[in-house]
Amino acid sequence: MLLIPLILITNDDGYAAAGIQALARAVAALGDVYVVAPDGARSGSSASITCTVPVSYKQLTSSPNYPVRVHLFACSGTPVDCVKLAMEQIVPRRPDLILSGINHGDNASISVHYSGTMGAVFEGCMKGIPSIGLSLYLSRGQRYEDHPVSEDTLTAIAQLCSRVMERGLATDVCLNVNLPVADSFRGWRVCRQARGQWSAEWASAANPHGLPSFWLTGQFTDLEPDAADTDFAALRAGYAAIVPVDIDMTAHRYIKELSMMMDDMP
Amino acid sequence: MLLIPLILITNDDGYAAAGIQALARAVAALGDVYVVAPDGARSGSSASITCTVPVSYKQLTSSPNYPVRVHLFACSGTPVDCVKLAMEQIVPRRPDLILSGINHGDNASISVHYSGTMGAVFEGCMKGIPSIGLSLYLSRGQRYEDHPVSEDTLTAIAQLCSRVMERGLATDVCLNVNLPVADSFRGWRVCRQARGQWSAEWASAANPHGLPSFWLTGQFTDLEPDAADTDFAALRAGYAAIVPVDIDMTAHRYIKELSMMMDDMP
Repeated sequence: MLLIPLILITNDDGYAAAGIQALARAVAALGDVYVVAPDGARSGSSASITCTVPVSYKQLTSSPNYPVRVHLFACSGTPVDCVKLAMEQIVPRRPDLILSGINHGDNASISVHYSGTMGAVFEGCMKGIPSIGLSLYLSRGQRYEDHPVSEDTLTAIAQLCSRVMERGLATDVCLNVNLPVADSFRGWRVCRQARGQWSAEWASAANPHGLPSFWLTGQFTDLEPDAADTDFAALRAGYAAIVPVDIDMTAHRYIKELSMMMDDMP
Repeated sequence: MLLIPLILITNDDGYAAAGIQALARAVAALGDVYVVAPDGARSGSSASITCTVPVSYKQLTSSPNYPVRVHLFACSGTPVDCVKLAMEQIVPRRPDLILSGINHGDNASISVHYSGTMGAVFEGCMKGIPSIGLSLYLSRGQRYEDHPVSEDTLTAIAQLCSRVMERGLATDVCLNVNLPVADSFRGWRVCRQARGQWSAEWASAANPHGLPSFWLTGQFTDLEPDAADTDFAALRAGYAAIVPVDIDMTAHRYIKELSMMMDDMP
């Protein structure tokens, strides 16, 4: 018996966010869709896991903005917890595809490290399942609700998902997709992660106990504004950026030099 | 005027942990030491950042297990928050070296992704500062306090830190150091990250509200038990494993194939 594909979706904005509902609608026709997502916002949660308290979940009756047949679960943990919990406790068979997003805000350049969206994608990849993270590049102050991903972009996402389920991805590689705000879909660009830097990261906060307190904020600088092959270059030109991401973080390019540098040490 | 080096230390077990105090003692002679660490345990916090509440800190009078001259600060945030906050709000000049650890437990293989210890190291590296994470490979049930890092290992760590401050590291590369439990220091091995997998990750937890609840646990499998050049191979042989880690997560090896796979798509 040929089973229809199982697609597991999570995010870091919580199951009630507009972006994840749009993503569930986009891929509803491709298979059985299970949404196992945080019960609220988990922005900036990276690949964090919950170590000090138990993680719980509950099944919800489908909300009006989800496709009718989606299986919907809210989880108390992080995006990575959602993937781990779904895989062992919730989905009836091994997923054919894991999706995360659509995040309200980009995860291009070094933001891949802070991103809860991408943390879940790394987890899926570590479990050997083709995994894709999707994020919308909003300017400061822009809200997803005012700039929803266009219908033809959602169609393009479904095509990408079909292709990845059909052909798979390389071992230990997952995809980081960032989408521009646009009325219509201009096309895909395969890119590398731009070099970038955050600065001016703290804004003073009031603290009734007299402790120095700060809100995390910051300004991002693209350190390669003239490069043509980066994710930010693609986004600036109005294209959807796809960066293949390696779960092996070893700097293979530096192994030899580091070995030489350590040569006279025990 | 030649300033003495400034060394910033953080961790994910909190400022009161034995491992970070041992690390501060190990490098106390190399420069001005600032410890800016979480006020409690932040295990598994990866490169997460605090987005929804302000982050605060306070200076502490030095504790008996820290070197007398260390500047000690406890922070309400994650390890990455500690580095960001220290850099902009606490240290009097740009650090020459950022250290994180010594973690009570290893961060070898894919655990580099979940590690709060390494999250702080990525952050230091993204800010262009030579950064090193250090972790002790304890077997399940072993406590750091019963298997503290040996004095000659601490001396070897100080030598490594001197070397790295003297010669620097490649752009966008930081170091992930994992130490074996041992009475004496056997030597360094430059390695790559082992391929690995976590399974059987959840243990049932009681929940008074009737929700399915689970503690995160799990068993780790080294998927390359016969490889000689991985971090786990070095640890098993009793050596300290050094993996150079790349902040650029792009799977450059897969760019061409992915471009071909996307060739007939818009």
